[in-house]
Amino acid sequence: MNHNHLNEILEAVAGGTLSVDQAAERLRHLAFEDIGYAHVDHHRSLRKGFPEVIFGQGKTVKQIRGIMERMVLQEEVVLVTRLDAEKAEVLGAAFPEAQYDAEARILVHARHPPAIVGRGPIVVVSAGTSDIPVAQEAAVTARAMGNQVETIFDVGVAGLHRLLAHGPILASASVLVVVAGMEGALPTVVAGLVARPVIAVPTSVGYGAGLGGLTALLGMLNSCASNVAVVNIDNGFGAGYMASIINRRDRE
Amino acid sequence: MNHNHLNEILEAVAGGTLSVDQAAERLRHLAFEDIGYAHVDHHRSLRKGFPEVIFGQGKTVKQIRGIMERMVLQEEVVLVTRLDAEKAEVLGAAFPEAQYDAEARILVHARHPPAIVGRGPIVVVSAGTSDIPVAQEAAVTARAMGNQVETIFDVGVAGLHRLLAHGPILASASVLVVVAGMEGALPTVVAGLVARPVIAVPTSVGYGAGLGGLTALLGMLNSCASNVAVVNIDNGFGAGYMASIINRRDRE
Amino acid sequence: MNHNHLNEILEAVAGGTLSVDQAAERLRHLAFEDIGYAHVDHHRSLRKGFPEVIFGQGKTVKQIRGIMERMVLQEEVVLVTRLDAEKAEVLGAAFPEAQYDAEARILVHARHPPAIVGRGPIVVVSAGTSDIPVAQEAAVTARAMGNQVETIFDVGVAGLHRLLAHGPILASASVLVVVAGMEGALPTVVAGLVARPVIAVPTSVGYGAGLGGLTALLGMLNSCASNVAVVNIDNGFGAGYMASIINRRDRE
Amino acid sequence: MNHNHLNEILEAVAGGTLSVDQAAERLRHLAFEDIGYAHVDHHRSLRKGFPEVIFGQGKTVKQIRGIMERMVLQEEVVLVTRLDAEKAEVLGAAFPEAQYDAEARILVHARHPPAIVGRGPIVVVSAGTSDIPVAQEAAVTARAMGNQVETIFDVGVAGLHRLLAHGPILASASVLVVVAGMEGALPTVVAGLVARPVIAVPTSVGYGAGLGGLTALLGMLNSCASNVAVVNIDNGFGAGYMASIINRRDRE
Amino acid sequence: MNHNHLNEILEAVAGGTLSVDQAAERLRHLAFEDIGYAHVDHHRSLRKGFPEVIFGQGKTVKQIRGIMERMVLQEEVVLVTRLDAEKAEVLGAAFPEAQYDAEARILVHARHPPAIVGRGPIVVVSAGTSDIPVAQEAAVTARAMGNQVETIFDVGVAGLHRLLAHGPILASASVLVVVAGMEGALPTVVAGLVARPVIAVPTSVGYGAGLGGLTALLGMLNSCASNVAVVNIDNGFGAGYMASIINRRDRE
Amino acid sequence: MNHNHLNEILEAVAGGTLSVDQAAERLRHLAFEDIGYAHVDHHRSLRKGFPEVIFGQGKTVKQIRGIMERMVLQEEVVLVTRLDAEKAEVLGAAFPEAQYDAEARILVHARHPPAIVGRGPIVVVSAGTSDIPVAQEAAVTARAMGNQVETIFDVGVAGLHRLLAHGPILASASVLVVVAGMEGALPTVVAGLVARPVIAVPTSVGYGAGLGGLTALLGMLNSCASNVAVVNIDNGFGAGYMASIINRRDRE
Amino acid sequence: MNHNHLNEILEAVAGGTLSVDQAAERLRHLAFEDIGYAHVDHHRSLRKGFPEVIFGQGKTVKQIRGIMERMVLQEEVVLVTRLDAEKAEVLGAAFPEAQYDAEARILVHARHPPAIVGRGPIVVVSAGTSDIPVAQEAAVTARAMGNQVETIFDVGVAGLHRLLAHGPILASASVLVVVAGMEGALPTVVAGLVARPVIAVPTSVGYGAGLGGLTALLGMLNSCASNVAVVNIDNGFGAGYMASIINRRDRE
Amino acid sequence: MNHNHLNEILEAVAGGTLSVDQAAERLRHLAFEDIGYAHVDHHRSLRKGFPEVIFGQGKTVKQIRGIMERMVLQEEVVLVTRLDAEKAEVLGAAFPEAQYDAEARILVHARHPPAIVGRGPIVVVSAGTSDIPVAQEAAVTARAMGNQVETIFDVGVAGLHRLLAHGPILASASVLVVVAGMEGALPTVVAGLVARPVIAVPTSVGYGAGLGGLTALLGMLNSCASNVAVVNIDNGFGAGYMASIINRRDRE
Repeated sequence: MNHNHLNEILEAVAGGTLSVDQAAERLRHLAFEDIGYAHVDHHRSLRKGFPEVIFGQGKTVKQIRGIMERMVLQEEVVLVTRLDAEKAEVLGAAFPEAQYDAEARILVHARHPPAIVGRGPIVVVSAGTSDIPVAQEAAVTARAMGNQVETIFDVGVAGLHRLLAHGPILASASVLVVVAGMEGALPTVVAGLVARPVIAVPTSVGYGAGLGGLTALLGMLNSCASNVAVVNIDNGFGAGYMASIINRRDRE
Repeated sequence: MNHNHLNEILEAVAGGTLSVDQAAERLRHLAFEDIGYAHVDHHRSLRKGFPEVIFGQGKTVKQIRGIMERMVLQEEVVLVTRLDAEKAEVLGAAFPEAQYDAEARILVHARHPPAIVGRGPIVVVSAGTSDIPVAQEAAVTARAMGNQVETIFDVGVAGLHRLLAHGPILASASVLVVVAGMEGALPTVVAGLVARPVIAVPTSVGYGAGLGGLTALLGMLNSCASNVAVVNIDNGFGAGYMASIINRRDRE
Repeated sequence: MNHNHLNEILEAVAGGTLSVDQAAERLRHLAFEDIGYAHVDHHRSLRKGFPEVIFGQGKTVKQIRGIMERMVLQEEVVLVTRLDAEKAEVLGAAFPEAQYDAEARILVHARHPPAIVGRGPIVVVSAGTSDIPVAQEAAVTARAMGNQVETIFDVGVAGLHRLLAHGPILASASVLVVVAGMEGALPTVVAGLVARPVIAVPTSVGYGAGLGGLTALLGMLNSCASNVAVVNIDNGFGAGYMASIINRRDRE
Repeated sequence: MNHNHLNEILEAVAGGTLSVDQAAERLRHLAFEDIGYAHVDHHRSLRKGFPEVIFGQGKTVKQIRGIMERMVLQEEVVLVTRLDAEKAEVLGAAFPEAQYDAEARILVHARHPPAIVGRGPIVVVSAGTSDIPVAQEAAVTARAMGNQVETIFDVGVAGLHRLLAHGPILASASVLVVVAGMEGALPTVVAGLVARPVIAVPTSVGYGAGLGGLTALLGMLNSCASNVAVVNIDNGFGAGYMASIINRRDRE
Repeated sequence: MNHNHLNEILEAVAGGTLSVDQAAERLRHLAFEDIGYAHVDHHRSLRKGFPEVIFGQGKTVKQIRGIMERMVLQEEVVLVTRLDAEKAEVLGAAFPEAQYDAEARILVHARHPPAIVGRGPIVVVSAGTSDIPVAQEAAVTARAMGNQVETIFDVGVAGLHRLLAHGPILASASVLVVVAGMEGALPTVVAGLVARPVIAVPTSVGYGAGLGGLTALLGMLNSCASNVAVVNIDNGFGAGYMASIINRRDRE
Repeated sequence: MNHNHLNEILEAVAGGTLSVDQAAERLRHLAFEDIGYAHVDHHRSLRKGFPEVIFGQGKTVKQIRGIMERMVLQEEVVLVTRLDAEKAEVLGAAFPEAQYDAEARILVHARHPPAIVGRGPIVVVSAGTSDIPVAQEAAVTARAMGNQVETIFDVGVAGLHRLLAHGPILASASVLVVVAGMEGALPTVVAGLVARPVIAVPTSVGYGAGLGGLTALLGMLNSCASNVAVVNIDNGFGAGYMASIINRRDRE
Repeated sequence: MNHNHLNEILEAVAGGTLSVDQAAERLRHLAFEDIGYAHVDHHRSLRKGFPEVIFGQGKTVKQIRGIMERMVLQEEVVLVTRLDAEKAEVLGAAFPEAQYDAEARILVHARHPPAIVGRGPIVVVSAGTSDIPVAQEAAVTARAMGNQVETIFDVGVAGLHRLLAHGPILASASVLVVVAGMEGALPTVVAGLVARPVIAVPTSVGYGAGLGGLTALLGMLNSCASNVAVVNIDNGFGAGYMASIINRRDRE
Repeated sequence: MNHNHLNEILEAVAGGTLSVDQAAERLRHLAFEDIGYAHVDHHRSLRKGFPEVIFGQGKTVKQIRGIMERMVLQEEVVLVTRLDAEKAEVLGAAFPEAQYDAEARILVHARHPPAIVGRGPIVVVSAGTSDIPVAQEAAVTARAMGNQVETIFDVGVAGLHRLLAHGPILASASVLVVVAGMEGALPTVVAGLVARPVIAVPTSVGYGAGLGGLTALLGMLNSCASNVAVVNIDNGFGAGYMASIINRRDRE
């Protein structure tokens, strides 16, 4: 439930097309709904400008479905992240209008295509081919939250000319999401080239002393560029979300 | 050297008040100056919108002074961070117009007070009294970069009413910097209350299993709120810088 | 074997309904029984007020069954924790009166429903839906040990209103068990609201820098609230046990 | 400010010995006082049954003094922990009635000796001579919070007969605090002997693979006894506080 | 090849029952044999008193078989450790006289039962039922190396009476191997009761903060008893080997 | 594309056997080709003397095939590392001239056998039989890069005579690659015997406190021999590559 | 108090030279003495064959002196380890017959030179010059416990010929203590050369990735030689003690 | 003692200018000299082409002096690394011809300036001003070992233009040493630009999540460039040594 939705209800009451009882019924679950295994947070859209997002990993299909059923009644857009293909198929049958991006592992249930609310393009850059799923998670999230998104993949720092060739796209970005595993140096190099905020996403790509992504994470936290902040390992969703919040045109 | 400075030189040449030779002399060091122990990056203001910042820790007074001498010729504002009081006193004698904030450990050398370039206020929140130096480092940085800054100190999550009482200030923020040691839970709680981006700064405040700030850092990276990104332990400067970049009114 | 059981034997001897030889036979294994792969600790009920609990993980069905066979002869209640569904089915056939809770993964073999020995309700709170199995392990344990138990699930700190809405239940608690993964901030926030002891249980829910629950564990150990103590990651059983010991009405 | 104090004010108003204005003035700071570097939490006594405790480490004498000045007006007892001898001397001059325990590094400012509110004795046990300061921190805290406290020092597990000789004191305990460094095995052994809750405190005593107390901490978290919960390394205060909360006679 | 075997060859030459050429052929591989994927160390029996032992994990059946074929020609006894049941079955077909202990996962190929060379009994103690496989690995190794071995299983420190009841066996030991997971306290407690050397073996039994056995390992290294030395996690073989070397009656 | 290939094109143009348009077409992709999921770096041969190598792990067969199709058009030799047998079979069908080494898990696609460009032999030494796959990865890489390679396997430091027996081969080496798991001591011992550079490769062979190869890695980094440098755990390819670069006869 | 001492008392009573009351007085403190900050364990000599040893670090001079005063009345030999020179001077004045070894940091108070009770020589080997203090701690301890001790210093594995030149001494050892920092490889190499038990002592000598001795510790735990067991970092005392226990001629 | 020195002695004997006895005396210590606290390895020059280097840290001035006195008799050049200024002053008095580099903390005692034995220049690059001491340690070492050395300081990856401006020097390098703290990305970027081997040196420069250099170390080990190998944190000496070994013109 976002501000538009709330206004619609109240205007319908004012206009007489919705009885007070009907409106009360719809507003009753405004704060949250306790369905036993979850407290669905219907208030979040109002408070934070975007509804709660369902983290699919570690939840049963039945639990996800139950939460979605409550949310689709009230929200413009519902996202389920970290959803494997098997669960996605079951949920796709229950919510036929939902769209599943297999690479990003996200299910998007939207009433209509998102309006663009971002100030400028969000550019998602990845260091290697194996980092693409995390980068796509960021891109799909940012698109669902109303942003124009550009992607540049496989431009690791061991071959700088590949990155530098994309200078104009980088320069056009309003916010950047930079995704890298292994030594995680790409966000620093990109941040050194641009004047805009960079959200760095370490990935678990690598082996041995890569420590499942900890090395990339630590490297990004120690970036010698200062327009960088970091999210959790493989957290493409979080980076896409944070970039969207930064980019949102609600405070000029 | 920022865009204004560059334009001034060029206009002076166009207007005949500066000879081509004089202008060339001043532009010669535009890219960077190699002074042996440092490559002073004069190009950074143009590229990134704010000059290089001198990290004082681990540099001798003589090195800092040498770098400052080159920078003050070309930059509107020069910052030296992590500067202890002893070094600050020596540098203060050499650069009398510079101002030292002992709590934030920052020396600011500015030609004139910074113009406000931020879209709205940056609010800096700290969990405990011992976190104040890091929070001040963020605040002083953000002010020097042209932002209106508000601070709220000592509002840890074990007494939520103290935080909730500051609801209106939190709601007014364009960007928030939230500083906490120990378990590092404050950024998540704040981020749950607001719709704007939160830069989380873990501090080394604590002991034992606090692991010198790693516990707070890890907690913030695992935040269950998504409008949070994280910088290095005790990196108040980085948080203030990133918040300023996010807040900058250059892309509407 | 608890105090009641011991008294029954001795009274039966005193009353002549049990011969000295028969009593000796039954008391012979009082201290412990060495069955090769295990020393069954029959003395524990007397010493600690509750019998030994069988940790199912890493034991074969045959071993668990052998231990249970000795214990059910002497104890009012026998618990097997960390028992997967497959083993539970085999043991269920051997001990038909035993009840298996699949979510908590606990098998409870009780002669009769436990009498309430707790001073007040134990309230079990979990941060997320994925934390429920651990929370249920605590709840089932505490119920089997004679406590009234209330549960509140999915009230993470990123949406405080969900937690605050349950204020009266929290205030009614005699002891609280608070279960959380990711950044593990919930126990601190809950502890800040109540005047009773909080047992914090980190879970392995999360990914990347969650480090399999270590981040939540470290966060809880650094809690800025002081009415908090911590048990091992995913140790719902231990939390339920400790809460029961604290709550036990044996020392007024 | 505790319930007694609040009642006194209200009764004085009811009895006409305090004007409404005077009462309002005294109640004005009930929730908290923002003194810039701290939000003094006057509400904590009401909410949690014991006032906020000042963590001395990392605060300047001036800050501690400022916080104490506000607190002593309203609270029966004020504790400053982790206070080194040098700061204690300065504060002792300002608050002559306060008492400093050099071994425990705690300053106690109490209006009158604490009334006993605990159900039974709290027994504090330490493994080695070097663990005594942490054990004393727990003991001083528990005494200040209204408990009878017994101590047993230097009874490590490599000489069990020393511990077993104190059986009767252990058995008399209502709650136990067990302090150990190095391998941290003592809490488990003690917990195996008693039927009451054990709060385990790891210390940083040891060297090399003791990892500054992490080894003891990890050992205690993996205790094979279940009536154990753990606090941070060297956190004698936290253990004494938690033991007091468990022991408090307010819920029979 | 041990000293006996070498002497036999030389005496056969001296006695004329073995030609010089035949002897040369048999002595040719004395030092080692390079079979491509392995350098079989035939010299080890002479140098160290016991032949090389084959670590089965990470080797193919073909590799193990190839190494065994060379070794059985020259050695009294050949051990393969960390051998899973599947590989054991294949090797059992090739070497029918070899005996496989499924719990210890060791294959023993011995020409005749080992003569007792130990000074006194080696006692192997384990803390829990789940630690038995590691304890058995130690026991089987020590028996194959010529020791009388006693075992005591499941006598963890949370129920000391179970351990103390075995006092006479502990006191009879010439060397002790003590195996424990979780907090790893048992070796210290045992070492405090005896005057003989204790080899401590941490196991990976446990979960969460047990860190796959690291917690037990660290605890044992910090033992407050001094007659303790430690081997790698789950290294029952190494403990049995080291105990045998200590116990060997070759230096009176 | 290497220097020879570039010269051929230019000479063909000069000689009139290739039209300018045809040459332009072939040179068009000189820098890199963006094929969506990858930026194929055709410039690398020119810049670094050896083409980009495809890291097979984490890429789909389709992605690897797509990259190979571009590369084989321009490069003398194409390597795919960390390629499991299943994927290798599919690719082998598509590129029948490619050769797959199952032990090293490398696919080599070469136009003709590599010319020897190394100054002298590269000697690859491994500590144990289980380290052979990593050692072979180094050997296959170094051979593909134009070196004569010798291998010595299973010469761990617990039986020095096996290593010392290979003294002449060690002394003949131009560069050495030394591979070891467990305690990782072999590179130091080898480096103490020779006057040439040693590239040390830790492997994940081992268990428990081997920490997946971290122990070997840390040991090698702390080598008390100074002619040692280290690559990532199990990074046989990297070691073979680095040894080849060191050995290359292009700077006399 | 050892067996001799106990027998003397009893024989004196039997012989009439000691009254029963006098004997009782002397036996009264047999088990332990509780002196507030310590439980002096007088029983340890009887139980373990050597008296308790005082760990000097973290104890005040006054505490050490108090413990020594009780012990010297009853024990043949009293050791204080980890004693800095400053404390040693004060104690030396109080116990003039005690001898302080400044390199080993041990104070030895012995009634008469220790009788040799070891089966053969204990050989202490160190890898580097900086490891000597730890090696000396082992040597002084083993001598005080009645062993002949040989030392070989600075024979690290990067120059094997230095170690191999000492072959005969190594071969003569009954037990070996091998001390090394950095990569900690020396114990493995030595253990590969001998047939006797090796106690490995990691030291904190090194820097960076030496991790304060953890790297050496981990390396030794992963030794590919099996006649090795390990003690804590810098624990020369523990190694000397364990070696003495192994070497003791009390079980033939 | 190097090959020249050995030949001189032998030729002097052949030429009759040195008696056999005199020569024997000088050759007597060829292998090593045991001076109690050290085994001076005189053989190292012959075996490895450069004499043993004295690691000054953790050795007393007296020990260093003793070792130097033996070495200067036999070696062309003697290096003492990690030598603080205080010790250097004392040693400078004893060896007036030695030269101390305060920034690199190295004392060099050379009979005459080193002849150039390197194939080409060694280029030492550092990321920041604070990394210079480590970089100088590498440069001084490489010069003492007979190389032409170029240095480029303060060219971190956040301002790539500073690095790229030095392209020709980078391209001229025979071997490169690249020194960086914080995120440690510089070696990867440099390695991507050149075709020669890069020795990467992490430094402990940084704070918080820099983990004393571990982050830089881990990053370098995970470099996505393959012509990189790594040495220990702050090990400028090791990098300079390894680079010299690689560069040495003894195998064409």
